[in-house]
Amino acid sequence: MSSSMRALVKPSPGPGFRLTEVPVPAVGPGDVLIRVEKAGLCGTDQHIYSWDAWARARIKPPLVVGHEFMGTVAAVGTAVRAIRVGERVSAEGHIADLTCLLCRTGQAHICEHVEIVGVDRDGAFAEYVAIPEYNVWRLDPAIPDVCAAIFDPLGNAVHTVMAAGVSVKSVVITGAGSIGLMAIQVARAAGATAVYAIDVNPAKLELARRLGADAAFLATQEDLAGELRRRTRGDGADVLLEMSGSAAAIDLGLRLLRNGGTAALLGIPAESVSLDLADRIIFKGVTVLGINGRRMFETWYQTEALVKSGRIDPGAIVTHVLPYTAFDRAFDLMEKGEAVKIVLDFKGDVVKP
Amino acid sequence: MSSSMRALVKPSPGPGFRLTEVPVPAVGPGDVLIRVEKAGLCGTDQHIYSWDAWARARIKPPLVVGHEFMGTVAAVGTAVRAIRVGERVSAEGHIADLTCLLCRTGQAHICEHVEIVGVDRDGAFAEYVAIPEYNVWRLDPAIPDVCAAIFDPLGNAVHTVMAAGVSVKSVVITGAGSIGLMAIQVARAAGATAVYAIDVNPAKLELARRLGADAAFLATQEDLAGELRRRTRGDGADVLLEMSGSAAAIDLGLRLLRNGGTAALLGIPAESVSLDLADRIIFKGVTVLGINGRRMFETWYQTEALVKSGRIDPGAIVTHVLPYTAFDRAFDLMEKGEAVKIVLDFKGDVVKP
Amino acid sequence: MSSSMRALVKPSPGPGFRLTEVPVPAVGPGDVLIRVEKAGLCGTDQHIYSWDAWARARIKPPLVVGHEFMGTVAAVGTAVRAIRVGERVSAEGHIADLTCLLCRTGQAHICEHVEIVGVDRDGAFAEYVAIPEYNVWRLDPAIPDVCAAIFDPLGNAVHTVMAAGVSVKSVVITGAGSIGLMAIQVARAAGATAVYAIDVNPAKLELARRLGADAAFLATQEDLAGELRRRTRGDGADVLLEMSGSAAAIDLGLRLLRNGGTAALLGIPAESVSLDLADRIIFKGVTVLGINGRRMFETWYQTEALVKSGRIDPGAIVTHVLPYTAFDRAFDLMEKGEAVKIVLDFKGDVVKP
Amino acid sequence: MSSSMRALVKPSPGPGFRLTEVPVPAVGPGDVLIRVEKAGLCGTDQHIYSWDAWARARIKPPLVVGHEFMGTVAAVGTAVRAIRVGERVSAEGHIADLTCLLCRTGQAHICEHVEIVGVDRDGAFAEYVAIPEYNVWRLDPAIPDVCAAIFDPLGNAVHTVMAAGVSVKSVVITGAGSIGLMAIQVARAAGATAVYAIDVNPAKLELARRLGADAAFLATQEDLAGELRRRTRGDGADVLLEMSGSAAAIDLGLRLLRNGGTAALLGIPAESVSLDLADRIIFKGVTVLGINGRRMFETWYQTEALVKSGRIDPGAIVTHVLPYTAFDRAFDLMEKGEAVKIVLDFKGDVVKP
Repeated sequence: MSSSMRALVKPSPGPGFRLTEVPVPAVGPGDVLIRVEKAGLCGTDQHIYSWDAWARARIKPPLVVGHEFMGTVAAVGTAVRAIRVGERVSAEGHIADLTCLLCRTGQAHICEHVEIVGVDRDGAFAEYVAIPEYNVWRLDPAIPDVCAAIFDPLGNAVHTVMAAGVSVKSVVITGAGSIGLMAIQVARAAGATAVYAIDVNPAKLELARRLGADAAFLATQEDLAGELRRRTRGDGADVLLEMSGSAAAIDLGLRLLRNGGTAALLGIPAESVSLDLADRIIFKGVTVLGINGRRMFETWYQTEALVKSGRIDPGAIVTHVLPYTAFDRAFDLMEKGEAVKIVLDFKGDVVKP
Repeated sequence: MSSSMRALVKPSPGPGFRLTEVPVPAVGPGDVLIRVEKAGLCGTDQHIYSWDAWARARIKPPLVVGHEFMGTVAAVGTAVRAIRVGERVSAEGHIADLTCLLCRTGQAHICEHVEIVGVDRDGAFAEYVAIPEYNVWRLDPAIPDVCAAIFDPLGNAVHTVMAAGVSVKSVVITGAGSIGLMAIQVARAAGATAVYAIDVNPAKLELARRLGADAAFLATQEDLAGELRRRTRGDGADVLLEMSGSAAAIDLGLRLLRNGGTAALLGIPAESVSLDLADRIIFKGVTVLGINGRRMFETWYQTEALVKSGRIDPGAIVTHVLPYTAFDRAFDLMEKGEAVKIVLDFKGDVVKP
Repeated sequence: MSSSMRALVKPSPGPGFRLTEVPVPAVGPGDVLIRVEKAGLCGTDQHIYSWDAWARARIKPPLVVGHEFMGTVAAVGTAVRAIRVGERVSAEGHIADLTCLLCRTGQAHICEHVEIVGVDRDGAFAEYVAIPEYNVWRLDPAIPDVCAAIFDPLGNAVHTVMAAGVSVKSVVITGAGSIGLMAIQVARAAGATAVYAIDVNPAKLELARRLGADAAFLATQEDLAGELRRRTRGDGADVLLEMSGSAAAIDLGLRLLRNGGTAALLGIPAESVSLDLADRIIFKGVTVLGINGRRMFETWYQTEALVKSGRIDPGAIVTHVLPYTAFDRAFDLMEKGEAVKIVLDFKGDVVKP
Repeated sequence: MSSSMRALVKPSPGPGFRLTEVPVPAVGPGDVLIRVEKAGLCGTDQHIYSWDAWARARIKPPLVVGHEFMGTVAAVGTAVRAIRVGERVSAEGHIADLTCLLCRTGQAHICEHVEIVGVDRDGAFAEYVAIPEYNVWRLDPAIPDVCAAIFDPLGNAVHTVMAAGVSVKSVVITGAGSIGLMAIQVARAAGATAVYAIDVNPAKLELARRLGADAAFLATQEDLAGELRRRTRGDGADVLLEMSGSAAAIDLGLRLLRNGGTAALLGIPAESVSLDLADRIIFKGVTVLGINGRRMFETWYQTEALVKSGRIDPGAIVTHVLPYTAFDRAFDLMEKGEAVKIVLDFKGDVVKP
């Protein structure tokens, strides 16, 4: 194997990425080296690309970016127990410490010492990425590459839906971005008897309907609370899945929720949110769940079961598959809202290492 | 039975109550008329007495006030099925509609059409009060009168503790008022392996320690987060019981909570609260529970079991038992912070009706 | 209203029913009198018709039989609060005492003092039946009569599925009788990613496949455990829904379940069952749920949501709708296994009372 | 370090153990070598010692026996991440494969490929034992050695109590052997409002009362069901913890349980059990939980919290601490029922290796 590879790198503070040669990552005793084949573009990547306030505070260049991906195992460390060279895999991008209370009790997804691939350590927009064996996920042959490449954000949707519990319930989803759209499919497949999508963008509402929403509404629609009540026996929705991070959407979603309902919050507000806790949560007896990452590895098993059984088709939201060399165009498409989900191909033009 | 009785009444908008003669309440077919013997003074009564903004918006005088009480059944309506004249009883003060989704699925405590005794309809600071049979709770002979009179706020504490789940967990309680103090006893009895109380009042912290808190801290103590970490293996508390309604306490309590912890909110903020949802709830994977009233009637069974088994002694927080004619003095004691919990006696000077 | 009506009656110990005139039921203060329109035939009715050992031990003739039904409210008692004459309704056939711990804590379906309509008190195979208001369920106009008539057994299926929890899980159903067949539809709609039906009757397996089972197997198929393992990643099924009451099926189902799985038992074994508790339950860490009746009224809300949303079509298992006068033929069809579910019509030939 | 050590060994099929020299275990890259200091004697050890039917079927001599222990880390493998030489530790004796669905979803305690220390691989009745780092548990300095040595069976009790959920519930424990006795303490500490112990041995009932049982009964007492009803408001117990494995106790315990109650089964029946599933489980709506081992590592955190907080004192059941060379006497004491729990000391007579 060559000692260098091509990668998308944030070389120094400032906007943009650079396609450059960097060393192939070292493979520790417990690590798996993966030849990346396809990788998904995420909002997080966009933050890092555009170098916004969050990125400036969090990212320490130089850094290979990217965390949603699939590929083939190229090498394994000396202490790797089960994963073998040649296996087709994806990976959980949150590297937990595996020694704290949370990691030792099945909650590694909220480990306090988590490092995120492509954020806190070198990532997957590259020919190779090194990942601890614990985080590697063997792919079922029935899962197409493009779908496997976005198991990470799909897993966010699955985690949110499964944490809230939607079986034979009515569900409101605020925010019909790529994760919100996947959540529509997942919620239906997981047994929701009604799925209502809300967004500020009419085009996304149309997409939401096509992906299975029973109805989709503009957040600005007059008397949306009344509309939801009429559709839910007068009670309001059983479940809110908040995917936007918008303060207005959080308040709206909680208003649409029935007393005793459950709200799962995945969207990240950029700043503090002013909430009427008394009327939105306390008197209503609402349960609010903070959702982060994917459960290791319940979420991965669930995601596989949903895709493999044909209950969901997450590939339906992938609007573009582009060669990784076209990354600037990809970010431009996302910036302009002309793409829903973009997958980069790292295999077509492989310079054999 | 006489047709009139003595009662504490809010006669018209403005501060104070008047001790006056009013008609004994009518007894509907499904109602139980109760001769009130002892009744607890609640913060809500104080709001109505002092005629604050909340009271001005909610209360429609004239109104007989009071909702925490115990007494003896004096008469029953024609359709009453099980309750008999002469039985010693308390009652759930939230009158639910019993026909909605929530009431029909075991969640009557968050019925949207609830009416609260002594707030939305005539209350229990009187010689007699009429209550639907559904709401009446038979008292076990082992429960002392003074304790039975405060089953309502004690039930708030029990509901909060049991909803959060404290068995073999570390618990932080923010707000050591009368419900917070009862929650200390309840949390210990329900299996908490550590109970930490936090308040802004050193006298209450002293009381908290006496009632069983493993430690009690001023909210202003420096590095309280570090202190809690040191006491909880470095993780933070498993459970937060928020009893103050203070925005600062809510933020502090959430900071003291470990990732994956549970926060049960009972205290009612007077206005909207600005919350860092991302860092306090979402990334931490926290569960937030809005708590209202008491579960009908899980909470009542649990409260009885706790008191009857001797696991808790809620009478320990009753600092005064006064004749009801001394109500002005009682509110003055509460106002000055010289009382923790006051019970009024409605039996000593009975004018036989 | 006439004082007498036509009804199917078990007049005295022995096989068969008699179609005869009996008094219209008295309407107590809290009761609702319902003009029966359609009623489902249940295995329980068959036990009573054929006068087997269970029936001889439980039934005290004379008795109007039948408990699955729908109709229109004909009269209401003086203390009825919400139900009105003319409303289209079904009803929960388990009359609970509403005063015990279980009834007071949302578990009326397992009240120890339950009386079952058509078993312990006069039933619904008649022009009229009287039911306490608490038990009456208003029908949504979108629910067809034939489907509404079988909400009771459909509710058994829904209760079993929802108690087990099938969302994004693999499910084995042992016993493809009418409730087992409905459970296939319900499990899929409630989010199961795989549903496997098992029976001893090949015709029922064919029906199971048509109703949505991913696969259906003869209980006698060789290496069924291996077959299930191959279909479930090597683990075994997540959930078992036991609908047969057969000792062999219970043992088989538990063998097919993965470690940590959940088994919900609805089928009633006729006698004690010899179980290898160590290997089937304890070492596997299995959860076993005893299921009885329907939750009041979570199950009814869920059933309505499933039917109204079009997620299930329980009418698909109704093979015959017969006039109630043809009851002997109906039982003959059931006896011979020529019917799956039969609904009797009590309206077509109404002698106006 | 010497290459040999003293150990209690089952050298070949047949009764008894032999104290002999064997090689110090090899330390794999992920292993921790522990100098054993104290070790508990378990019923399993007794089965192997006496060479009963279970032992003959399961054990492959030669084998170093023993699985309950504590000691000090003597060496660590090259890939060990966090554990250091000199740390005081105990260890989970169930070695799970860490790659299956169960291990990957927080249920390693029911891994299908588990190997048990001292049963399926060399154990801890020796100067040294090698354990994978994953299984090692650091001991808090506040936990005494004798108590740390029995964290394994104490963990069985904690797992059973916590799985059932006893907070503010009434609890029946059938079987007052050493785990049943520990469960009394644990159940009280975890919030049970009543704990009732049942056994066939009056001496154990006396011990049960001393350890905190609210009452203790002979299994043969007449009308025990009536007695329990009278003590539980007429309902029966909320929770059953079955610790005996006796078919009669399982049936009795289920009869004492109220409708809707929870039964956690830890005791292992030696053969199949004939159960009236209809009347004991299905009609009652009972939940039955199969309990195996200890949750990794929720149970260990909970056990530590209970001991460290002083809520329980498991040392109270240790009747003997003997040098390991006195193992024959120890098994004789257990055989004769003259001991409750025996701890062997492996440190006093150390031949420095």
